[in-house]
Amino acid sequence: MAASTFPIALVQMRCEPNPRANLDRAVARLREAAAAGARIACLPELFLSPYFCQREDPKLFDLAEAIPGPTSERLAQVARETSLVIVASLFERRMAGVYHNTAIVLDADGSLLGRYRKMHIPDDPLYYEKYYFTPGDLGFQMFPTRWGRVGTLVCWDQWYPEAARLTALKGADILFYPTAIGWHPAEKAQFGESQHQAWELMQRSHAVANGVFVAAVNRVGHEGPADGGLEFWGASFVSDPSGTMLSRGSHDKEELLIVECDLRRVEDVRRNWPFLRDRRIDAYGDLTRRLID
Amino acid sequence: MAASTFPIALVQMRCEPNPRANLDRAVARLREAAAAGARIACLPELFLSPYFCQREDPKLFDLAEAIPGPTSERLAQVARETSLVIVASLFERRMAGVYHNTAIVLDADGSLLGRYRKMHIPDDPLYYEKYYFTPGDLGFQMFPTRWGRVGTLVCWDQWYPEAARLTALKGADILFYPTAIGWHPAEKAQFGESQHQAWELMQRSHAVANGVFVAAVNRVGHEGPADGGLEFWGASFVSDPSGTMLSRGSHDKEELLIVECDLRRVEDVRRNWPFLRDRRIDAYGDLTRRLID
Repeated sequence: MAASTFPIALVQMRCEPNPRANLDRAVARLREAAAAGARIACLPELFLSPYFCQREDPKLFDLAEAIPGPTSERLAQVARETSLVIVASLFERRMAGVYHNTAIVLDADGSLLGRYRKMHIPDDPLYYEKYYFTPGDLGFQMFPTRWGRVGTLVCWDQWYPEAARLTALKGADILFYPTAIGWHPAEKAQFGESQHQAWELMQRSHAVANGVFVAAVNRVGHEGPADGGLEFWGASFVSDPSGTMLSRGSHDKEELLIVECDLRRVEDVRRNWPFLRDRRIDAYGDLTRRLID
Repeated sequence: MAASTFPIALVQMRCEPNPRANLDRAVARLREAAAAGARIACLPELFLSPYFCQREDPKLFDLAEAIPGPTSERLAQVARETSLVIVASLFERRMAGVYHNTAIVLDADGSLLGRYRKMHIPDDPLYYEKYYFTPGDLGFQMFPTRWGRVGTLVCWDQWYPEAARLTALKGADILFYPTAIGWHPAEKAQFGESQHQAWELMQRSHAVANGVFVAAVNRVGHEGPADGGLEFWGASFVSDPSGTMLSRGSHDKEELLIVECDLRRVEDVRRNWPFLRDRRIDAYGDLTRRLID
């Protein structure tokens, strides 16, 4: 029987060149989270390696692996041993020429409950994801884990209210966003604060609009050439369903955030702010248009 | 030829029992705004009277008036004399038994460019709007005024990302939200700060998600019985398209906010955050469902 109140864990980490070392460190953090009582834990986006999308190089498709595969199996073992639900972001090799940015959900018994393939794919300077990732074809999903109804979305998805809404309409109580977002060092002084603020408020707004918990899990550290590259801004956080910040990590340190979530807050908040009651579903048809021009 | 940079004006005001007095004060503020160089001005929701939806009383339908009608005509005269575009929120009598919470847009030549009928109607303790207002049947709209492409949404709409998105997809560069929102005095100490924060971040998120300016215009003052009623929280504000707060009014004083907006920021921000490019319109069909269960 699932408790309504339990801690969730956010693993904010650096990602080094050696995938095996990253996996070992992630596993150590997950065991630590379980020991601290966490029921659901989430790793950052593509935590097995540096953020390789900073350049377009066909050799880097070697980083992709099948799901199930060696990484999902090792994490499944951790889930089984610790009864932790694990949300992990992997570079999925589906077939030669079709690769995805995928979040998997491992249930507390170690079974692979399902996968979410990132639906919104960015392409901006140093975030050349359209080169690597085929847009997801599984739609927006909710995973009924042993400990709670989990929604998974990935990084760029966080800017899309549609993604959060559809995941919430499927019944998710907590949205996890594995993320790899950072500053261009040359822009940081001028735009850094407003970029980080926009990122955070956008995701808190999903919590409010839908009456769900939102957990964003980012990496930290500078990656790439010393005179460029990306400085990942950390600041992993959990917002409650009213948009209140429950906990926020630093911008630059590895951290394990253990955050108590009371799922009864979802019911509470939605009774007081009954937004889902009043949606004008008769008038939303044009959301499937690119523009209304 | 429209300039790309100009001030907009937000009239944060108290609303007294006498509609004529409220209209006189609103007109004075609009003239002041025009004298200060504002090109577009917005009044709070239902500014002609106290927020009558605190109780359900059939006599209060007497407050409604036709559009065009005496109030819209007086405001049109101001628009014509000052070349100000005016967004005003009125209790519209459409026919016996059909009343709307309507925002009108008067163009700079005084013509009635159009009306938006509030689409999302709340019903919460002391906000008994479902009793008074038939839900809007005109959908989400953009008004191409002389000075800029204006979207109008009203109060409760502000909690709905769908409303902001559809209005932006129609080409609006600035969203105006005439509002009447406040605290239940008995709740304020415990929930007041988080309620106000959620309200503000939700609307700033519309600015970010859509790359538009957002202006929220609220009333101030306590209305209703001394041991209850509502304390309207003011805090009218303008957010730029990156979510940056340009200006915010006080919680308790009448104020005329004059805020410079550079519409070129819309282009700028959307080039740097090309969210509209990557919407998964093939996967949004279920947004027209109540729940996906």
